[in-house]
Amino acid sequence: MSLLLAFDDEAAMARRLAEALGWPLALIERHRFPDGESRLRLPPRLPPVVALLRGLQQPDEKIVQLMLVSAGARELGAQRLALVCPYLAYMRQDIEFSPGEVVSQRHLGRALAAWFDAVITVDPHLHRVPTMDDVVPGRRGIALTAAPLLGDWIARQVPGALLIGPDEEAAQWVRAAAARPGLSHAVCHKQRHGDRDVEVALPDVDVAGRSVVLLDDVASTGRTLVQATRGVLARGAASVDVAVAHGLFVGDAVEQLRVAGVRHVWSTDCVPHASNVVSVVPMLAAALASLRWSDA
Amino acid sequence: MSLLLAFDDEAAMARRLAEALGWPLALIERHRFPDGESRLRLPPRLPPVVALLRGLQQPDEKIVQLMLVSAGARELGAQRLALVCPYLAYMRQDIEFSPGEVVSQRHLGRALAAWFDAVITVDPHLHRVPTMDDVVPGRRGIALTAAPLLGDWIARQVPGALLIGPDEEAAQWVRAAAARPGLSHAVCHKQRHGDRDVEVALPDVDVAGRSVVLLDDVASTGRTLVQATRGVLARGAASVDVAVAHGLFVGDAVEQLRVAGVRHVWSTDCVPHASNVVSVVPMLAAALASLRWSDA
Repeated sequence: MSLLLAFDDEAAMARRLAEALGWPLALIERHRFPDGESRLRLPPRLPPVVALLRGLQQPDEKIVQLMLVSAGARELGAQRLALVCPYLAYMRQDIEFSPGEVVSQRHLGRALAAWFDAVITVDPHLHRVPTMDDVVPGRRGIALTAAPLLGDWIARQVPGALLIGPDEEAAQWVRAAAARPGLSHAVCHKQRHGDRDVEVALPDVDVAGRSVVLLDDVASTGRTLVQATRGVLARGAASVDVAVAHGLFVGDAVEQLRVAGVRHVWSTDCVPHASNVVSVVPMLAAALASLRWSDA
Repeated sequence: MSLLLAFDDEAAMARRLAEALGWPLALIERHRFPDGESRLRLPPRLPPVVALLRGLQQPDEKIVQLMLVSAGARELGAQRLALVCPYLAYMRQDIEFSPGEVVSQRHLGRALAAWFDAVITVDPHLHRVPTMDDVVPGRRGIALTAAPLLGDWIARQVPGALLIGPDEEAAQWVRAAAARPGLSHAVCHKQRHGDRDVEVALPDVDVAGRSVVLLDDVASTGRTLVQATRGVLARGAASVDVAVAHGLFVGDAVEQLRVAGVRHVWSTDCVPHASNVVSVVPMLAAALASLRWSDA
């Protein structure tokens, strides 16, 4: 006996995930009061195994929902509770960059560990903390990667593409995407001059006449991608496409990419967006199944 | 060694509270990223006793701040951590009104108990849960009341006023406000026909020629107060003023009250607003001092 819970703004993805799992789906009723409070309503009786689908784009309101849903679900019968979080926020704040800075990654991770038995996410931007198990101490943490899926897509759309990643930290991730036949890759060099003063240098490879795909795990305002696009076009690239795991695309990010000369903007469905071309749903379903909770 | 922490949008009240306590004040640095994440920065070293001032109007983003600040403050040296929360949200959702509804009061209360050693608030709308100690199990919970302060103000502004409260549940609170010489009081009768179908009947007292002050703990959209204002004016009241502990005043609430015929709108400074006329700061300072943590 298992159930998938989701909110109505992620209903489309939730339906696909429930179908892949062979689980029933229940949408959480949410009423938002004018004073900013929300009233949430779950199915009155829950089976022992429950998964909640909730991505954390624009995270704060949703983090409160996670707290309330997890507590409510346990009162209503859930014994094993998994969070399926295709986009996990606050992962970049993983160290005290200047004295007194709150290390949000650690604190959100501990909160998730208090609320859920398992957390499944995609490409969570882990650098200094090695695994998702470390992010949710004492619980099961699963970090999937969309890099091969994006690589497959790119290999079909742009045979022979040169994939360029944002920095050395992303090298392994970009290499995984570029493992498809015919693709090659390189990464930019990011030099940190100060707390907020970061310079991105294009890799020392000849891009003239090449079909370039700029790859990144997250695109927010897209400013770094805009700079990189201008750079490779100035060096004679034949075309520039952008592929990201998490397309947050805040404000006019996509418009700015187009203005800079980007041809296609592609993303996975980790964050619902018009640019979604690759689905992580089968991967999420497989990860949930791997918990083997339905045997319990 | 004690310190008061606050956010810049409550800096004015924080300065008054720090002065009343004789404590230093540090404002938390907050940077909001375009993707909705926040980066918070506290003083790099904190003394053993720390109080955080944070009201929970428009609560969700602030609840995440409470989680992050409490975790961060403990890492930076705080051993005793108090939340001074002049307006505590989610207290009305204190029972499963229909099956499956998440009882947010209980879950937020437990979260606060996990994050803070003590929670001090004002008029938290406790009905079915008797005390603030029950809201934050295992921790110190202090519920102050602004009713006598509002009563003092009203007694000076409107000698001989008739104070009218919203419902029987508020009777004791209204009585406390009306304890000042020359004031009298009555409460409306609230009849619940269904989940969202509530009828408010004015009390059976003669309001003709009287100076009426409508009293409530929270005003959100102000719709109930607008209805009550029309009612007492139709019965010949000489004037109607409104006094509330927590003036959330969402949207055009104050404008709607004026249109309905309200003369003055008064509130305490629990929620910063142009209508603030009474300060709860001395009361909050006294409650913090009563914890006697500085002796530790």
